[in-house]
Amino acid sequence: MEKLGMLYQGKAKKLYETDNPDVLWVEYTDQATAGNGAKKENIAGKAHLNNQITSVVFNLLARRGIPSHFIRRISDTEQLNRHMTMFPLEIVMRNKAAGSFAERYGVEEGTALKQPVLEFFYKSDALNDPFINREDILALDLASAQDLDIIASKTREINQALTAIFKAIEVELVDFKIEMGRSSQGVILLADEITPDTCRLWSTRNRDGGITHLDKDIFRRDLGSIIPAYQTILDGLTRLDRAEETGQD
Amino acid sequence: MEKLGMLYQGKAKKLYETDNPDVLWVEYTDQATAGNGAKKENIAGKAHLNNQITSVVFNLLARRGIPSHFIRRISDTEQLNRHMTMFPLEIVMRNKAAGSFAERYGVEEGTALKQPVLEFFYKSDALNDPFINREDILALDLASAQDLDIIASKTREINQALTAIFKAIEVELVDFKIEMGRSSQGVILLADEITPDTCRLWSTRNRDGGITHLDKDIFRRDLGSIIPAYQTILDGLTRLDRAEETGQD
Ligand SMILES: Nc1ncnc2c1ncn2[C@@H]1O[C@H](COP(=O)(O)OP(=O)(O)OP(=O)(O)O)[C@@H](O)[C@H]1O
Ligand SMILES: Nc1ncnc2c1ncn2[C@@H]1O[C@H](COP(=O)(O)OP(=O)(O)OP(=O)(O)O)[C@@H](O)[C@H]1O
Ligand SMILES: [Mg+2]
Ligand SMILES: [Mg+2]
Repeated sequence: MEKLGMLYQGKAKKLYETDNPDVLWVEYTDQATAGNGAKKENIAGKAHLNNQITSVVFNLLARRGIPSHFIRRISDTEQLNRHMTMFPLEIVMRNKAAGSFAERYGVEEGTALKQPVLEFFYKSDALNDPFINREDILALDLASAQDLDIIASKTREINQALTAIFKAIEVELVDFKIEMGRSSQGVILLADEITPDTCRLWSTRNRDGGITHLDKDIFRRDLGSIIPAYQTILDGLTRLDRAEETGQD
Repeated sequence: MEKLGMLYQGKAKKLYETDNPDVLWVEYTDQATAGNGAKKENIAGKAHLNNQITSVVFNLLARRGIPSHFIRRISDTEQLNRHMTMFPLEIVMRNKAAGSFAERYGVEEGTALKQPVLEFFYKSDALNDPFINREDILALDLASAQDLDIIASKTREINQALTAIFKAIEVELVDFKIEMGRSSQGVILLADEITPDTCRLWSTRNRDGGITHLDKDIFRRDLGSIIPAYQTILDGLTRLDRAEETGQD
């Protein structure tokens, strides 16, 4: 596999072509951003952690019958992914009120929801990733009704699997954002990344009232360094992955 | 029917109790607001026009088999309505991109949509009436899934009827906002008002390129006085209503 020209420089990753048009060479960077890039910082070690965390998560999901774009990790900060045609959508699922949901609707963070909710945001830096509903997605032709049905049911499956995975390492999955795309064979697949940058993860250990954030809210809200928190997540997931591997042998 | 104490002072109307708990005495006011009250002005004649316009619209809809809270007009600026338990939702239907839709998604005003779209906004002045999706409405328990299905299909019916009504008076219905509530008998009904304050109405006469607004955008965008525009709408609807009455006799 040969790394060729850069296709896209995102806020957290760089995408490169390879000699196989179906394969993307993805390099995680140390850059952290919040508020659509309004807050930006380099955090040594972030690339390394997120590249490993998302690799383990995609492995754990694959073991549970949920495929993704992930092919394999090739270095501390790089991985190979299947090259997809992405939907311009951030797909958000929430198990509890937090973040923009809590703010938008005036609900206290941590409030239980009657059921997990699915939200879409239109990926557009110029428009500030606006909240969008199903009908508007159809009217703007960003995805078809059938695509949205598939995306919704896959997201619910992913939520169930991820919730159990994080529960096993004493972490509550409060909400997460994923992206999906269509492979060259026409199949809709989970893509992008699943990391503490894209999930709200609250420790379920020693609950002395407050919330112990193990995710990017530490950065967004200036609560300290993200590195030990991300390391805790990686350690937990790695242990779980090893235990499952051993169990399967 | 006796007018008793004031129940609510809104931005455009005052609601009073009557000696019948099922009947509301509604007084239209001359106040115009935009941007959730950020812009506010008294416009002599507005109460009179909107009270008459919404009365004729509700009559025209009733004739087409679409019931509402409207009982009867009792003066130039007052009407009797059935007292409903309102859903805290603004129900918006769009036939073309305009206003907040055009802005939110970076689409030019007037762009055709693949199909009419339904949007909900959570009625809360404190939160600035945020855009809300179906799943969030369910999670926050603002309406049930069955309620939303009924609201959606009624809104589509109303859109079809209103589009035809306005077309008959050479006006294009670009979008509109309605509210619904539940009557004391448990039935979901169209309520509130249907006026140029709550619809985008574009003249289809002499289309020399630009848009001739016959609605509150004249006020929102400082395009002149709303009074002649609202009067044009009232005159057209009154003529249509009379013609239909005569035809039926
Ligand atoms: N398998 C894939 N095939 C093609 N593109 C992908 C794939 N997975 C992710 N992408 C895209 O790669 C880009 C990753 O960039 P990155 O996450 O750094 O930042 P960004 O999306 O520009 O900004 P944000 O931080 O808001 O996500 C995104 O545009 C994403 O949609
Ligand atoms: N049939 C009805 N029964 C009970 N309440 C009603 C009925 N019809 C309308 N309402 C309510 O009456 C109020 C009308 O007030 P008004 O339209 O003046 O302003 P507002 O809703 O406070 O603000 P906005 O200008 O944003 O609509 C609204 O709260 C509306 O939901
Ligand atoms: Mg990204
Ligand atoms: Mg109102």
